[in-house]
Amino acid sequence: MQDVASSTMNGAEALVRTLHGAGVDVCFANPGTSEMQFVDALDRTGLMRCCLCLYEGVATGAADGFARMAGLPALTLLHLAPGLANGAANLHNARKARTPMLTLVGDHAVRHLVHDAPLTADVAGAARPFADWTRTATDPATLGADAAAALAASLSRGGQGAALVSPADIGWNPGGVVAAPVAPAPRDAMEPGAPQAAVAALRRPGALLHVGGSTLEDAASLALAAGIAAACGARLMAPTSNRRIEHGAGRAQVARLPYPVDMALEALAPFDRAVLVEAAPPVAFFAYPDKPSLLLRPDCAVTTLAGPRGDGRAALRALADALGVKPAAASDAPRPAAPLPGPITAGTLAAAVASALPDDAIIIDESITAGRDVYAACAGAPPMSWLAITGGAIGIGLPLALGAALGGGGRPVVALQADGSAMYTLQALWSHARENANVTTVVLANRGYEILKQELLRVGANPGRSALDLLEMARPAVDFVSLARGMGVDGVRIDCARALRDAIADAAGRPGPFVIEAVIA
Amino acid sequence: MQDVASSTMNGAEALVRTLHGAGVDVCFANPGTSEMQFVDALDRTGLMRCCLCLYEGVATGAADGFARMAGLPALTLLHLAPGLANGAANLHNARKARTPMLTLVGDHAVRHLVHDAPLTADVAGAARPFADWTRTATDPATLGADAAAALAASLSRGGQGAALVSPADIGWNPGGVVAAPVAPAPRDAMEPGAPQAAVAALRRPGALLHVGGSTLEDAASLALAAGIAAACGARLMAPTSNRRIEHGAGRAQVARLPYPVDMALEALAPFDRAVLVEAAPPVAFFAYPDKPSLLLRPDCAVTTLAGPRGDGRAALRALADALGVKPAAASDAPRPAAPLPGPITAGTLAAAVASALPDDAIIIDESITAGRDVYAACAGAPPMSWLAITGGAIGIGLPLALGAALGGGGRPVVALQADGSAMYTLQALWSHARENANVTTVVLANRGYEILKQELLRVGANPGRSALDLLEMARPAVDFVSLARGMGVDGVRIDCARALRDAIADAAGRPGPFVIEAVIA
Repeated sequence: MQDVASSTMNGAEALVRTLHGAGVDVCFANPGTSEMQFVDALDRTGLMRCCLCLYEGVATGAADGFARMAGLPALTLLHLAPGLANGAANLHNARKARTPMLTLVGDHAVRHLVHDAPLTADVAGAARPFADWTRTATDPATLGADAAAALAASLSRGGQGAALVSPADIGWNPGGVVAAPVAPAPRDAMEPGAPQAAVAALRRPGALLHVGGSTLEDAASLALAAGIAAACGARLMAPTSNRRIEHGAGRAQVARLPYPVDMALEALAPFDRAVLVEAAPPVAFFAYPDKPSLLLRPDCAVTTLAGPRGDGRAALRALADALGVKPAAASDAPRPAAPLPGPITAGTLAAAVASALPDDAIIIDESITAGRDVYAACAGAPPMSWLAITGGAIGIGLPLALGAALGGGGRPVVALQADGSAMYTLQALWSHARENANVTTVVLANRGYEILKQELLRVGANPGRSALDLLEMARPAVDFVSLARGMGVDGVRIDCARALRDAIADAAGRPGPFVIEAVIA
Repeated sequence: MQDVASSTMNGAEALVRTLHGAGVDVCFANPGTSEMQFVDALDRTGLMRCCLCLYEGVATGAADGFARMAGLPALTLLHLAPGLANGAANLHNARKARTPMLTLVGDHAVRHLVHDAPLTADVAGAARPFADWTRTATDPATLGADAAAALAASLSRGGQGAALVSPADIGWNPGGVVAAPVAPAPRDAMEPGAPQAAVAALRRPGALLHVGGSTLEDAASLALAAGIAAACGARLMAPTSNRRIEHGAGRAQVARLPYPVDMALEALAPFDRAVLVEAAPPVAFFAYPDKPSLLLRPDCAVTTLAGPRGDGRAALRALADALGVKPAAASDAPRPAAPLPGPITAGTLAAAVASALPDDAIIIDESITAGRDVYAACAGAPPMSWLAITGGAIGIGLPLALGAALGGGGRPVVALQADGSAMYTLQALWSHARENANVTTVVLANRGYEILKQELLRVGANPGRSALDLLEMARPAVDFVSLARGMGVDGVRIDCARALRDAIADAAGRPGPFVIEAVIA
């Protein structure tokens, strides 16, 4: 890293050199005119791998996937307020995952803003609902320092969303200064007395040990959590949606809280004590008439050993020490057999995936309803990283797969992708092709928003044709093989569970992307 | 319209009945769980035509196209903050067009918001940068009145963006009351003395008469503007991008200010006086180093007869009266001949479109660079409505075409669609198919963001491979015919100008959608 104030270096170059000096070397980009100075700086310095995305939601979702695997943010380069908004849904998902995210978004030159040009809008205002940290740069001399601060913010408190707005002239004007890295803020400290309270809660059998966040990404922490649960007669459970779970053979297994509200209430009904480790008290995805928002029993005593921004790994070590517990042995769940030829259902899909996965795969889970049985079936499959949609904003799967492929050091990626959600950020397939990413996308084609049909019943409606027309995609049916080929990705349509298993194994074993449209029976 | 407070009617039904009573009868929707009570109310009442869009940006762009043709907003139904953000780019375009827009977006039930559920985010905050009016509903009894206020806001001051946020329980709880329509706020009044100043500016030859907004949508106003310009020796010009221009044979012709900043400066260099009618002083789309933001000469005397929110039609009538001027005769520009067989260039594309258009077509112009000559060539084509991208947020063309088809009373739609921009909201094609919309989409395939290559040079860069990789889409080439077929729309790839002309004429003459990938030479 250079540490120089150069009269020839502009703000944009100082930003690129600052971030690269701190380890950021990938940029997912969809730039426009007001970001050309950054395109130029990335080009001249050659310091980052630049990945063009044909839509901003692809760029932000890919940056999330990259960071989930690499542990360090990729840079995302977006164009003004509309570009930020186009990427905001996946910024939202990343924020709820507490993924470190670093968004750079251009604005008009400062002198231009007063004139209400066609693309003028409040960029920082558009970013704020989807970021934990927002700053607008004001001087080329401090743009490098702004970038260092943004990166530190993204890495703070276990992972945050940081958005840096840079007016065009702040980037193109000279006087840029490369800044040194800034230390991120630590995770929240444990509350005094929390370990003792957790020990007391767990000493009596029948408690819930609810673990999330970074504890799920660490096989040793998972083993410790499972050991504690086994020793105490507690039930170990993870939140429904998580940034990353180390899953599969050789790992301690952790069940996830079900999504449907009635199943979640039922799963939590036995517990009058809960200990939370890097997790918040479970809350329903949505409110429903006559159902509670909070899913634990009202009389359940909750001990927060570590909140969502606490240090769950340290908390588990402290707890294990206090309880004198050892890590659990890995699960000995058997690997499911390949399914027999027959229709693709929730059950045969799970067997097909679990029996097909290669070693050390990365699973992308935006399977919504159709893939509900896959996670449990994979307990006996080779070890894998399991990345799920976290913020409920559908359209993350294909971008997340792109980023995980780039950040995962060559590991094969298998994306379980609901069809309705796939249509949100379909453009990701083009980047799969361009980057020759080893992503096998399994589109779960049930030809509708199946989850919404279930939700409509939950709010008490008796849907007619007009309502169903808003929830079904069968008229016309989407042909995902044709869509994939249109973006340079080969594919196949399959309606047999055994053929699906073979196609997944084959595609995941070969380099480059592939799409399998799995027609759900 | 019912005007009742019913103990059985919920807030959602009161909203639907209120809007329908005021004339809103189309809804472009991409709902989620927190909007199921609206889906249910739309279903039970059967009062609106509901059009499912597979992405929110399709819904908002379609609502814009509908309102540009119908003069009344369609309802747009979106899901929480991420759904609003997904639709925000086209809300931005609509806002810059001053199109009346009515966005309904759900939020969690009020009691649910405190628990930071996965989809919780600041919905109103996400809407605010892209709306002129935002309100969050608080009571089922006033949700109908909120809807009436939102509709009035959308129709106020010549057209605005109105976003109404409705927490789920406000919609599903009983006590809904249907509200009477509310009068919209009027357009801005003319400044005292403005007509006299405008007359004085125009009495001496060589002035600029710059007309925009609703004046361009009205053939009589266009004729009056042309008559005034001819009588005074003034130059008549419209802004670069406009909500709708009545164009083609039988109409007075108005040139548009060019997009490239140097061409725009050159076009305005002759004028030391400018009279603005429903327009603001022209501003460059973007700032560039060493170029001005404002495009009129610094010494140009500007008279605002009517600002962007004024009444341009009344202003032109007042001006014509004061000057004693009659409407101009329609232009007698000849219809261009069909192009000879040969490559598709800017020139032959223009001839192909202008010679192919049927009577009374609606042209959607998101052609960016490749279509730059089409507008002028169409001066001699049959009369048409010309709808352009207005806010610079690309990805409006295909959705705008959908909405224009539904709001245009069966008129054929021809969309001139740049390829890079097409990829933003490609999902619109599925709705073209489902609605059997008569939209002929001509994808102008130059395989890149051609405009950004030009912009990169304008900021002084000398692009290398890494920069060009961020601006080119040729690796891999997108196959738009395959993409269209994947969503149920037939299509063809064409690289001959004459064949393109024939294909446009053929497709526009048949019902239903069609995609033509026009490979630019």
